[in-house]
Amino acid sequence: MIAIPDAAGRLSTALGGSPAARLAASALIEADALGLSRFGIAMLDEWTANVAPVPKSENLRAISWLDCSSCFAPLAVADATLDLTETARQFGIAAVFLRGVRGFGRLAPFVRHLADAGLVGIAGAEGPPFVAAHGGTRPVIGTNPFAFAMGQGADRVVIDVASSTATMADIRNARVSGMSLPDGIGLDGEGRPTSVAAEVVALLPRGGQIGSLLGLVVELMAGVAGGGRGDPKGRGVFILAFDPAAAEERVDWQARLTGLKSDWTDGGGHWPRGGVLPPETVLDGDFAQRLDAYLARMAGQAGR
Amino acid sequence: MIAIPDAAGRLSTALGGSPAARLAASALIEADALGLSRFGIAMLDEWTANVAPVPKSENLRAISWLDCSSCFAPLAVADATLDLTETARQFGIAAVFLRGVRGFGRLAPFVRHLADAGLVGIAGAEGPPFVAAHGGTRPVIGTNPFAFAMGQGADRVVIDVASSTATMADIRNARVSGMSLPDGIGLDGEGRPTSVAAEVVALLPRGGQIGSLLGLVVELMAGVAGGGRGDPKGRGVFILAFDPAAAEERVDWQARLTGLKSDWTDGGGHWPRGGVLPPETVLDGDFAQRLDAYLARMAGQAGR
Repeated sequence: MIAIPDAAGRLSTALGGSPAARLAASALIEADALGLSRFGIAMLDEWTANVAPVPKSENLRAISWLDCSSCFAPLAVADATLDLTETARQFGIAAVFLRGVRGFGRLAPFVRHLADAGLVGIAGAEGPPFVAAHGGTRPVIGTNPFAFAMGQGADRVVIDVASSTATMADIRNARVSGMSLPDGIGLDGEGRPTSVAAEVVALLPRGGQIGSLLGLVVELMAGVAGGGRGDPKGRGVFILAFDPAAAEERVDWQARLTGLKSDWTDGGGHWPRGGVLPPETVLDGDFAQRLDAYLARMAGQAGR
Repeated sequence: MIAIPDAAGRLSTALGGSPAARLAASALIEADALGLSRFGIAMLDEWTANVAPVPKSENLRAISWLDCSSCFAPLAVADATLDLTETARQFGIAAVFLRGVRGFGRLAPFVRHLADAGLVGIAGAEGPPFVAAHGGTRPVIGTNPFAFAMGQGADRVVIDVASSTATMADIRNARVSGMSLPDGIGLDGEGRPTSVAAEVVALLPRGGQIGSLLGLVVELMAGVAGGGRGDPKGRGVFILAFDPAAAEERVDWQARLTGLKSDWTDGGGHWPRGGVLPPETVLDGDFAQRLDAYLARMAGQAGR
């Protein structure tokens, strides 16, 4: 067993101990603690001692583009998030487009970091085509998660939602277990709905047309404007932040957020928190062993 | 019968003939031409000769907030869109939050204007609570349209989608006609699904959870960050734009947009155009009479 702050501290040190290393390490450890191990320290498979430092623009600009194909992706996304905190405060609004991003985990911890800094954070990531357009028959975009965060403490909202109902990992799991899929999950090679995991060649958008349009927006942002689409070196990711306290006069957004949260939950809605860990959460012995193995490999490579 | 450019020209002149008047007039006329008369020149019911000019920030800033409660709303949204074109070019990215906005029509023409100017345009509008949260039982947010536009000519994409399946206008029409509603449209006063229009007190989000989250994002942007939520004087609206040509190096976004459009449509998807009028479209005599009546009323008031 290992406590979360312990695990995050050790991984952060192995990643160089910078503020970006701390953010990246805690994002990966949190995913494992939430049971989302596909987005956790498994990302360290991509780490090598000769990863490039995250590129920096010459000047802090309100909008920038970064090629991250030689970087360790969780560190690149963390570094870009931290720089964005500065540029969003300076200009009032800022955005960064990353491309060539390999597995970086979940978007939620990064937009949440922006919310904790008093900003509104918005992000999305495109990826290889697995999902069909609404009404379509072939995969054309990725599962394209979209994330949004705002506020602090109990009022904080953290949305992190994929544009498809299932992921390719769900399909692989169903293939292994032989379970049949619910309706609305996937299409076969002829573009027909199927409940047989082995036949699935395209995932369906979440909620039909509106999920399809949200996936398209993420693709247009991260893939087209950001230049990530079709890049074999990795995904396109965008992160946007703005400062609601930049208003010339007082809009009292915190009070309005409190009010919206109470209307939403009083009306029976679920207030999205983006994954919350009880404070007593610990990671099990298997996880501790995996982390040890990664850290040993990293130390061995770094010492060469 | 009246041709669209004729109608737009006459209305633009009546609204003062400025670039914002031209954009506002063409947006309203287009809605009528598309058969969406609820978003067309009916907005002129709100026009009075003593509307205030659209407020301006002292300096052009990357992010700004405007109280539009004393303005004619279509003109305020048009004016903010035109200013945003300048600030987005200057800073690379910019946003404006309007509040106290009464009926302004559709978002599509405004984000499309940004796309035609070479920018990516994103907008949303919140409004009085008609829509329940996913899983909820009471109305907590508006139908909260979200809009996105990018590109020019045949590749241009214009998304304009409401976060609910139906609008309150659809419910009123069904009440009048006595038609029963399809499933997934509305809830009654007890929070139960109903197909009886007269019983509907809350609309359901489009596509379930994902439509509910998109509606919540629009509410958080336009209602909370923008300060529009709960303002009896009008809606909150946000408009955001960025310049994909601001990349230090060439990301070739136009070629990627062409490629995405062809993948999307070849895969059976519908490429959203946000309402397209055939060039030969004309407006009928009833419309021409209504427009004449509005213009006469405006001339009469202005002449006093």
